[in-house]
Amino acid sequence: MAKSAQQSKKLVIPENEILAFAIDHETPVYLYDEALIRSICKKLKASFNWAPGFKNYFAVKATPNPSILEILKDEGFGVDCSSMAELMLAELVGFSGNDIFFTSNNTPLDEYTKAKGLGAIINLDDVSHVEFIHETIGLPDLLCFRYNPGRSRTGNVIIGDPENSKFGMTKNQIFAAIEKSLNLGVKKFALHTMIISNCLNESEIFANAKMMFDLVVEIFEKTGVNVETVNCGGGFGIPYRPEDRDFDLDTLSRNMQEYFKGLLTRDGVKPFNIVFECGRYITGPAGMLVTRILHLKKSYKNFIGVDANMANLMRPALYNSYHHIVHIKDPNYGIINSKLKRSLSEQSQDGVYDVVGSLCENNDKLAIDRFIGHNVEIGDLLVILDAGAHGHCMGFNYNGKLRSAEYLKTSSSSGSLIEIRRRETLNDYFSTINYKCSK
Amino acid sequence: MAKSAQQSKKLVIPENEILAFAIDHETPVYLYDEALIRSICKKLKASFNWAPGFKNYFAVKATPNPSILEILKDEGFGVDCSSMAELMLAELVGFSGNDIFFTSNNTPLDEYTKAKGLGAIINLDDVSHVEFIHETIGLPDLLCFRYNPGRSRTGNVIIGDPENSKFGMTKNQIFAAIEKSLNLGVKKFALHTMIISNCLNESEIFANAKMMFDLVVEIFEKTGVNVETVNCGGGFGIPYRPEDRDFDLDTLSRNMQEYFKGLLTRDGVKPFNIVFECGRYITGPAGMLVTRILHLKKSYKNFIGVDANMANLMRPALYNSYHHIVHIKDPNYGIINSKLKRSLSEQSQDGVYDVVGSLCENNDKLAIDRFIGHNVEIGDLLVILDAGAHGHCMGFNYNGKLRSAEYLKTSSSSGSLIEIRRRETLNDYFSTINYKCSK
Repeated sequence: MAKSAQQSKKLVIPENEILAFAIDHETPVYLYDEALIRSICKKLKASFNWAPGFKNYFAVKATPNPSILEILKDEGFGVDCSSMAELMLAELVGFSGNDIFFTSNNTPLDEYTKAKGLGAIINLDDVSHVEFIHETIGLPDLLCFRYNPGRSRTGNVIIGDPENSKFGMTKNQIFAAIEKSLNLGVKKFALHTMIISNCLNESEIFANAKMMFDLVVEIFEKTGVNVETVNCGGGFGIPYRPEDRDFDLDTLSRNMQEYFKGLLTRDGVKPFNIVFECGRYITGPAGMLVTRILHLKKSYKNFIGVDANMANLMRPALYNSYHHIVHIKDPNYGIINSKLKRSLSEQSQDGVYDVVGSLCENNDKLAIDRFIGHNVEIGDLLVILDAGAHGHCMGFNYNGKLRSAEYLKTSSSSGSLIEIRRRETLNDYFSTINYKCSK
Repeated sequence: MAKSAQQSKKLVIPENEILAFAIDHETPVYLYDEALIRSICKKLKASFNWAPGFKNYFAVKATPNPSILEILKDEGFGVDCSSMAELMLAELVGFSGNDIFFTSNNTPLDEYTKAKGLGAIINLDDVSHVEFIHETIGLPDLLCFRYNPGRSRTGNVIIGDPENSKFGMTKNQIFAAIEKSLNLGVKKFALHTMIISNCLNESEIFANAKMMFDLVVEIFEKTGVNVETVNCGGGFGIPYRPEDRDFDLDTLSRNMQEYFKGLLTRDGVKPFNIVFECGRYITGPAGMLVTRILHLKKSYKNFIGVDANMANLMRPALYNSYHHIVHIKDPNYGIINSKLKRSLSEQSQDGVYDVVGSLCENNDKLAIDRFIGHNVEIGDLLVILDAGAHGHCMGFNYNGKLRSAEYLKTSSSSGSLIEIRRRETLNDYFSTINYKCSK
């Protein structure tokens, strides 16, 4: 437990830069590292360079910031959008056509209309939407269907049992959707699935790919339709815990390549595009939440109170997720607020704390019974790692708390930090209220 | 399971008004009922009319809307604030002085400064904050301390085991805080606890009150200090499920009165003010979330897709909470969007559905395996009950989803519906982004 956090987890932004930055700016704050994002993109592309039409459609929901999306566009990625706002973000950055996958569920007409207008690949969650789109805005030439294998496969705990999942169609419905679409003039087809999330075991992702590849063959053999594109979903995990291993991209790629080659030896099966929609895998490790210690408390246990809370990072409270936390000793501590300095009597003997935010909500804990360090003082910085995906975007305003700013460390020669989202203000919080004091 | 929802749970706003309203307006939308809020206030006050200085400090976090707070002010309530934003809401509505309880934790200096400026009762979560306030802004004449009984009592599951809770001080710390404060010139004291949430068993709330009353006596006997005010917290539950019984306010009140009278027979113990900080109990039943059915889906189970989601109501996903849902057959259904009308083949035979939002997040379910009705059609309205507290305020913007408008049905003779918070727009969602397209 007491091993050094710095030893077990590599920091992606040098300490002195975090310090210089966070001392000058108000915490909590999100920092993203462009160089790391680009290197992960390149690694993924290199690993799948054998795959026809390979593309990763970045799941916009993970990090819905256009400055991040622009980096991904430059790396040749597409975007996976799930809502009107995400389609607009994609449009703002200049994505269009087959570089946009629109995968939503329970979808209102205006979102289909927007997706079609952008030329996006429209991925239907339900067979009934074939007719719905036909009757309203008209069907595009290419349609994608989301497959839910039900009992034939079980997802991991985060996505849950596919049979209870609201997402996707049964196999019979996939066939019905293809038949209906053909009759209505659709010419090209894609398939999609997403039943696993944050999985470090590449064999589970491979099993997904095999399932989809087999479905392509089954569709060809039963209908003569050659599916053009297979979106194997995302689900590649990242090592949140120091003891976690890395996701084995190369083994996944090699296994998929071999299986794919085997399929192509079968009569009439043509090569198809292989794409993913990884979000967390791309930006998760490249973002961190920097927070400052406001308070040390000892009641029945030891607490570090920080200026971040569920408004800034929801995953620990919502999913009981682990984020590694690194304590950064701040050499300029004394100048920050000498009033805050106080005796260290509250410090934990064994360096173990609950790290908590200030919400009136006992779930508001960023870490429980975690070794943070022996020399923790008010004013020090804590860096919460692997917060680059499903981090800022999941914050709420409960208790009137405000969401953080986001900064990007660019990979230009200067390596400057630029603000890519401003901090929320109390004016934002009050902006939707209609109130005239009646006094 | 198949009993009529309408029979088992009384609607607080007549159906025809909901219909007239929701047909004219965009769903999802929150509706609050002023008359019901006022009647609950009056019931609580009447029940405790024996108690010295009785006041309920409404937990602003439950329904942080100034139009709601104004009603409560008019009913003689105070406010319980936990953050800068909540203090500003209180100020906006005209609360000041002892009508504001400031109960926070891990509190930054600027919030203490604001609270002191408003004359609020400052409730300290940690003994070390006595000195902190003394050294910074100076101590007020009256201080309150938050008590955490640790192993001597267990809270219910929502608040969790007090010993693991981040909130409050041990008994030794309460005594240390009083001694320290006396030495630093504090003249009056209050006590507070909050270890139970949403509890329908009044005996648990009574046990809390007894614990606090006993602490008052113990403090008097050991220090000679007569505590001026005891804030017994909130925690009064509401019957979310049709089969739940009402919270027995009168039994609680009677038991507390008897116990209180007993204490006053003891030498030197003076009467003290008895206050609560109920939030959910006051506004929970008086608010509903109205949503429209966008989609019916049958895959491995039956789904009703609605236009509300976790952005509008987080409790089912975050706490696995139950909210009763009533299906309102909309007589004007046909005129809403004839394009949406379609065969009813997807309808569930037994009327049981998962009611889901449109987030790409399988937790986004408002109800699971719930009987909704046999005659459910796209375009119909569902009313999600008891959403008046910890409802709108807990929504997030994940997946780019937007938060609803809030409307108040006033109790004036006209009974008009007024918009007390506008719907969030995509412009709001984009407002914090700093982005210039580099193309």
